[in-house]
Amino acid sequence: MPKFLNENEAEILRKIRGLILDLDGVLHIGPRPIEGLQTFMDFAFRRSLKLIYVTNNSTLTPEALCERLSGFGIQASETQIITSATATARYLTEVFPDGGEVFLVGEEGLHQAVNGAGFEISDKKPLAVVVGLDRHIDYQKISTAATAILNGARFVACNVDSGAPKQGGIAPGAGSMVAAIQAVVQIPPVEIGKPEPRMFHEAVQRLGLDPEECAAIGDRLDIDIASAHLADLPSILVLSGMTDPEMIEGSLYPPDLIYEDIVEMVNRWELSLGVPRL
Amino acid sequence: MPKFLNENEAEILRKIRGLILDLDGVLHIGPRPIEGLQTFMDFAFRRSLKLIYVTNNSTLTPEALCERLSGFGIQASETQIITSATATARYLTEVFPDGGEVFLVGEEGLHQAVNGAGFEISDKKPLAVVVGLDRHIDYQKISTAATAILNGARFVACNVDSGAPKQGGIAPGAGSMVAAIQAVVQIPPVEIGKPEPRMFHEAVQRLGLDPEECAAIGDRLDIDIASAHLADLPSILVLSGMTDPEMIEGSLYPPDLIYEDIVEMVNRWELSLGVPRL
Repeated sequence: MPKFLNENEAEILRKIRGLILDLDGVLHIGPRPIEGLQTFMDFAFRRSLKLIYVTNNSTLTPEALCERLSGFGIQASETQIITSATATARYLTEVFPDGGEVFLVGEEGLHQAVNGAGFEISDKKPLAVVVGLDRHIDYQKISTAATAILNGARFVACNVDSGAPKQGGIAPGAGSMVAAIQAVVQIPPVEIGKPEPRMFHEAVQRLGLDPEECAAIGDRLDIDIASAHLADLPSILVLSGMTDPEMIEGSLYPPDLIYEDIVEMVNRWELSLGVPRL
Repeated sequence: MPKFLNENEAEILRKIRGLILDLDGVLHIGPRPIEGLQTFMDFAFRRSLKLIYVTNNSTLTPEALCERLSGFGIQASETQIITSATATARYLTEVFPDGGEVFLVGEEGLHQAVNGAGFEISDKKPLAVVVGLDRHIDYQKISTAATAILNGARFVACNVDSGAPKQGGIAPGAGSMVAAIQAVVQIPPVEIGKPEPRMFHEAVQRLGLDPEECAAIGDRLDIDIASAHLADLPSILVLSGMTDPEMIEGSLYPPDLIYEDIVEMVNRWELSLGVPRL
């Protein structure tokens, strides 16, 4: 049942000109587009909303993500996409403007982002060790990463996600690889992905809007909504993904608005605009 | 320089009839026996000291450890050896007296101990997931372990050692594998190895002595000495391994006695007995 969470619901929605969207649990559920995705995309087009897709996934390149989104019926350009891998590459260029060598624990998306930002991938005296989800993790990689960090390389985590349910089990996330290395070096990493606000700051910058004209939509309190809070952005929780309503009470970071899914959001939004649905 | 740490040094030493010995850093340094090892072994024989070797190493079987010790000039029987793998197997038999299936992340020593205790090694609905050092760790093992734990299997860590220095770097310890899985399941494991006191309790039991007649010798404050404190045993720190004297001040678990190495310990011990060295 739709309900007003606070008196400002209409006010929040009317102000929004740019949306920062999480993917899985919001626009698609695993391999399937979410029901009503086209309704949402049509609404966004009519309202001229600027959209940007922000994901902790560091395994895919922006190109591969565009292709995946296209399979769900979403046409996006690479400039609309921020992954924890591209955000990590950006962080590295800020900290090491002269480039240099970086050791990676990660997959293609991370490799291409860091390499494309002008860094050489190497295990010889790297400036930084960058860790994302790596489904080919092994003992030697953990050892090489830990040794480099203990020798002074900066320890950078694309994100510390614990993992996601998959058919018949759980798929460990980047947080698993990060923890394996952290346990050896006993030093915490610099974190780039959500819930750190860094990616949302970059998203606002790319949207070219004021923060109060933007809102972040996600399905997870501890990742998406926390990140929006830390970036001082209005936040919208959808219940179509990993969050049950009973998890909301007592959450450290309460969302500004809560909807069953993006279709209910569109309905409420149109109501707030005084525009009847066709 | 030998010095009396407290007035009870002589009293502590004179009481000791059984020694619980750590290996690396105490009796050998990596691949080499420690200088004066024979002096120590001769003294122990003359005093009829009962010796038991307790190690967090879960990769070797007691048989393989006896062989390794023999290479250092120490003749030990398998009953004198407690590894975190044999202690884990004992724990499992206490908790699951009827046996059952167990999933392992570990090497030969762990496999043989758990299998030898009557458990079947399996990833199908295991009662427990047991994690030790595994230099063949991979993504699938982390995923299988995490899935089993989330399905209710007990999460058991042989130990949570961070790792050890090796030629040109660091060799990650069991703690790295444990952390990789713990980050996914977000549940802490039952810990068996030092600093948990479980192995020292078993050592005292095997020695058949009163706790005050035993002492634990080790080279690490956070592992060996902490474990002795938690097991209420007198503790002896030797500085021949991983601990520098400046680390002692402010340690949560101060050792009862501190010596450069086991040779200095023997010298002080003989002094305390009023027996001149030959």
